Amino acid sequence: MSTAASLPPSKIPLITSVAAFREWRNEVFKAGRSVGLVPTMGALHEGHLSLVRRSLAENDLTVLSIFVNPAQFAPHEDLATYPRTLPRDIELLTAESVNVPGLDQPRVASAIFLPGVKDMYPSGINQDVNAQKGTFVEVKGYSHQMEGKSRPTFFRGVATVVTKLFNVVQPTNAYFGQKDIQQAFLLRRLCLDLLLGHPDPLHLHIVPTTREQDGLALSSRNAYLSPTERRYAPVLYEALRMAEAAWKTGEKKIECVRLAVGHIQKCTERAKTDPEQVVEMRLDYVEMNDVESFDELGDEMSLSVSRPVGSASAEVVGDGSDKQVILSGAIWVGKTRLIDNIVL
Amino acid sequence: MSTAASLPPSKIPLITSVAAFREWRNEVFKAGRSVGLVPTMGALHEGHLSLVRRSLAENDLTVLSIFVNPAQFAPHEDLATYPRTLPRDIELLTAESVNVPGLDQPRVASAIFLPGVKDMYPSGINQDVNAQKGTFVEVKGYSHQMEGKSRPTFFRGVATVVTKLFNVVQPTNAYFGQKDIQQAFLLRRLCLDLLLGHPDPLHLHIVPTTREQDGLALSSRNAYLSPTERRYAPVLYEALRMAEAAWKTGEKKIECVRLAVGHIQKCTERAKTDPEQVVEMRLDYVEMNDVESFDELGDEMSLSVSRPVGSASAEVVGDGSDKQVILSGAIWVGKTRLIDNIVL
Repeated sequence: MSTAASLPPSKIPLITSVAAFREWRNEVFKAGRSVGLVPTMGALHEGHLSLVRRSLAENDLTVLSIFVNPAQFAPHEDLATYPRTLPRDIELLTAESVNVPGLDQPRVASAIFLPGVKDMYPSGINQDVNAQKGTFVEVKGYSHQMEGKSRPTFFRGVATVVTKLFNVVQPTNAYFGQKDIQQAFLLRRLCLDLLLGHPDPLHLHIVPTTREQDGLALSSRNAYLSPTERRYAPVLYEALRMAEAAWKTGEKKIECVRLAVGHIQKCTERAKTDPEQVVEMRLDYVEMNDVESFDELGDEMSLSVSRPVGSASAEVVGDGSDKQVILSGAIWVGKTRLIDNIVL
Repeated sequence: MSTAASLPPSKIPLITSVAAFREWRNEVFKAGRSVGLVPTMGALHEGHLSLVRRSLAENDLTVLSIFVNPAQFAPHEDLATYPRTLPRDIELLTAESVNVPGLDQPRVASAIFLPGVKDMYPSGINQDVNAQKGTFVEVKGYSHQMEGKSRPTFFRGVATVVTKLFNVVQPTNAYFGQKDIQQAFLLRRLCLDLLLGHPDPLHLHIVPTTREQDGLALSSRNAYLSPTERRYAPVLYEALRMAEAAWKTGEKKIECVRLAVGHIQKCTERAKTDPEQVVEMRLDYVEMNDVESFDELGDEMSLSVSRPVGSASAEVVGDGSDKQVILSGAIWVGKTRLIDNIVL
């Protein structure tokens, strides 16, 4: 990815190979110190930094990894243009510290792990899934709903790279953002199923989404938005909030989703004729899914109805009263795809 | 799998849960001692014991795991009838010891790991691949040749369960038999690709096949053979030896395979009219594959020809002179499927 010569200056040690990281980790194991991992694709923002602060507070040592993972991008997606901002990432991370009772000095991050593509994919990696060779990890039954519907090989790429990262970093705790909620729950299942000890599923933490003042969830992809597009970007969260409010008053799922979709469609119309810039918006999906199975709720489901009338039993995945529900969606604003969710 | 109450007596500690094994392993980590793992499905024979002796000689502590892995059996295969002989397995393992220079006492196995199906598959495991849910590991491009051709989901089951075993046991060294050569090479690639540290690919050892006096490779499935079938069982190895001899004299691959197949067919005819018992034999395959890519050699390949005349370039995977070749095969003897191989 980067040679030592091309690396920006950094007070926090940059570890650029798997072999070097293993050495670092072995020393830390011997010293009996805990390690928190914040896995990222770089282009750090306040959302990532909130994960870093959690990790600093809860672990002796914190490692942030930066790796733009080819395997989770489809050939038509934005791998080539995904923002790469290493000098700025280092600056932001260096500025983070947490005061810990009993320590003289504030705690700062201990290492940035920057593996190269060859290091992470020793058998190589092809963007075309059908041409891929080597070892891949798949979480079957949890990868085809919500985000997996729109991005059919996305979670296979995520599961594979995170398994590798966990195997190298062997974190005591790992931190993921709620914005990618399906990813976080799916990785927790991966830890459970693969019997990972570092981290075990209980030490994979999901940290609430950080938002702009207008509600927009922070995302590295927000950088793609033009100023006008940026004004429309909070529409998804507004729509989810409307659905949430309706759900809480006892509305059926189908009505909640209809409300959210209606709001997005109204804004889509407005955006088409915006005097500043014509903004093309497009709804990808708004859905409500059981938090454990990821199955879609039946249309008739509601907070108060434990068994919806007339819905197929296969759709009934929770009784709405004691199981959590993921309300999530994705929209296109211009050429930028945005996602968001609320856990009900 | 078995409750403490139903376990046979054993001088070697039996560890029956993942949680208990992790505790044991953590103590061993702290003590800085090396751990060798011999993963088995039980029904131990001299082949397994040769792996155990290697492990005893090379590690402070040796763990033998016994787990009959549902995920590597197809629905029509012999999961239900696979031999389960725990008391005898314990006896055989207890009798093994290795004298190590500098130690007063001969070294013996330190633990038998006997996880249950629920422990190994927290999300459950269905024999029908299409109905499976949860996390699975696949080694793409290396699972559809040789054994993978006849058993299309076999290696997915193997890769998944061994990843889990490695994650729990975290062996310094792991030992596999050459009889399952594709499995061993594929798992080495898995360690490489998934960046496993315990074991790393260099510490996954492949131990030569143990054979009966007549050449038959030891296998737990040999127990299925009737005495008459047993007499025909060495036919596969004989056939491979004939192909090996021809290869060494410079014969083309297609001729080597033809020789082996011819021998098996001749014996198949004889077996049909055996005066003791009619034995139904059937050739599954005899093939020659590149040891690294697992690709089939081109028909015209030979030891001396570096670029075969007239074969498709995609088939040319090694020049025969400096790359190793796997000569392998499978036959049915009655209802028992036997495999064997020679590395050329």
